[in-house]
Amino acid sequence: MYSPSIERLLTALKKLPGVGAHTAERYIFHWLKSGKREVGELVLALKKLMETVKSCERCWNFSDASPCPICRDAKRDRTTVCVVAEPADLAALERTGAWRGLYHVLRGVIDATEAENLPKLKIKELLARVKTGEGKTKISEVVLALNPDLPGETTMLYLERELKRINPQLIITRLARGLPLGADLRYADDITLGNALSHRITR
Amino acid sequence: MYSPSIERLLTALKKLPGVGAHTAERYIFHWLKSGKREVGELVLALKKLMETVKSCERCWNFSDASPCPICRDAKRDRTTVCVVAEPADLAALERTGAWRGLYHVLRGVIDATEAENLPKLKIKELLARVKTGEGKTKISEVVLALNPDLPGETTMLYLERELKRINPQLIITRLARGLPLGADLRYADDITLGNALSHRITR
Repeated sequence: MYSPSIERLLTALKKLPGVGAHTAERYIFHWLKSGKREVGELVLALKKLMETVKSCERCWNFSDASPCPICRDAKRDRTTVCVVAEPADLAALERTGAWRGLYHVLRGVIDATEAENLPKLKIKELLARVKTGEGKTKISEVVLALNPDLPGETTMLYLERELKRINPQLIITRLARGLPLGADLRYADDITLGNALSHRITR
Repeated sequence: MYSPSIERLLTALKKLPGVGAHTAERYIFHWLKSGKREVGELVLALKKLMETVKSCERCWNFSDASPCPICRDAKRDRTTVCVVAEPADLAALERTGAWRGLYHVLRGVIDATEAENLPKLKIKELLARVKTGEGKTKISEVVLALNPDLPGETTMLYLERELKRINPQLIITRLARGLPLGADLRYADDITLGNALSHRITR
């Protein structure tokens, strides 16, 4: 229906998550209207990404340098490591400003429906970090900050067992469960409300 | 929060319609996981688009050639022209296989809130086509296939007046209004149901 060069770009764009023919069309007609400068900047940014971004050899976050700025930051607490599934989770936690320790990006979670991904997870690397410590500092606490869903819970249970095996004294914690900001008690699900009650905070 | 090369691509992607920080993040982490080959193909497709696509000098559709394949197609009826707002509308009509005439892409509609776009619309070019005809063929019918909303109706009223001024014998038609496939009479709005009744089809 479209010209060959438009069809080619449609095919390339439809590989993106959540992008179908309609969204891809909208992007293409946006670029055709916006002109060469915007597309030029996008092409340069894509090339730069592929040339520059690497995995941090310690925390496995994506970064322009390895070790990444967080792992090199002398002001961060090297005795605590927060385990996340994806780089986007790390970014969300960093935005809160509430974490001053280090991170470890698993690059996914244990998922029974995608068993072939299991060897790609950076679990071995996490266990090695806990075993050897961060430079001269020993890791004393690992926060498991995975999503509270089935694959997340499965992964956290597995990690707890393996981490305890390496260091029985290691403190292993999880993110608090309770009511989110702006929640309405009446409409909260039973498990969330139960958690909020049993983990209630003394003031 | 992210590395400079990721932030740069985030900025470039957020210019796309409907793309915010979260969608842009999802695209970037998809590319970082999928690797260089997929990004390479996307970069090539973007470059090819900018190098190749032009506006057809007759119908103003985007195409790799000017005149475009539709305008050059000798089997198409050169006495009828279907006016659409955007190339995506042309593509939708072509998919139906129900139109064998030519097209004219206005590249937008008359919109009171975006008055600066008015001179960019290909209205002058449409009137010139109706005046001079397609090669040796005179245009006898113009179908106004714009959306049945306020800017669409405004534009169609304006075009009707201007087209009649050039050729009082010209047949000007609009797309039929009525119930869409799968509609439920009970829940159809009054105007749609009224249209379906007054334009009822004799079998």
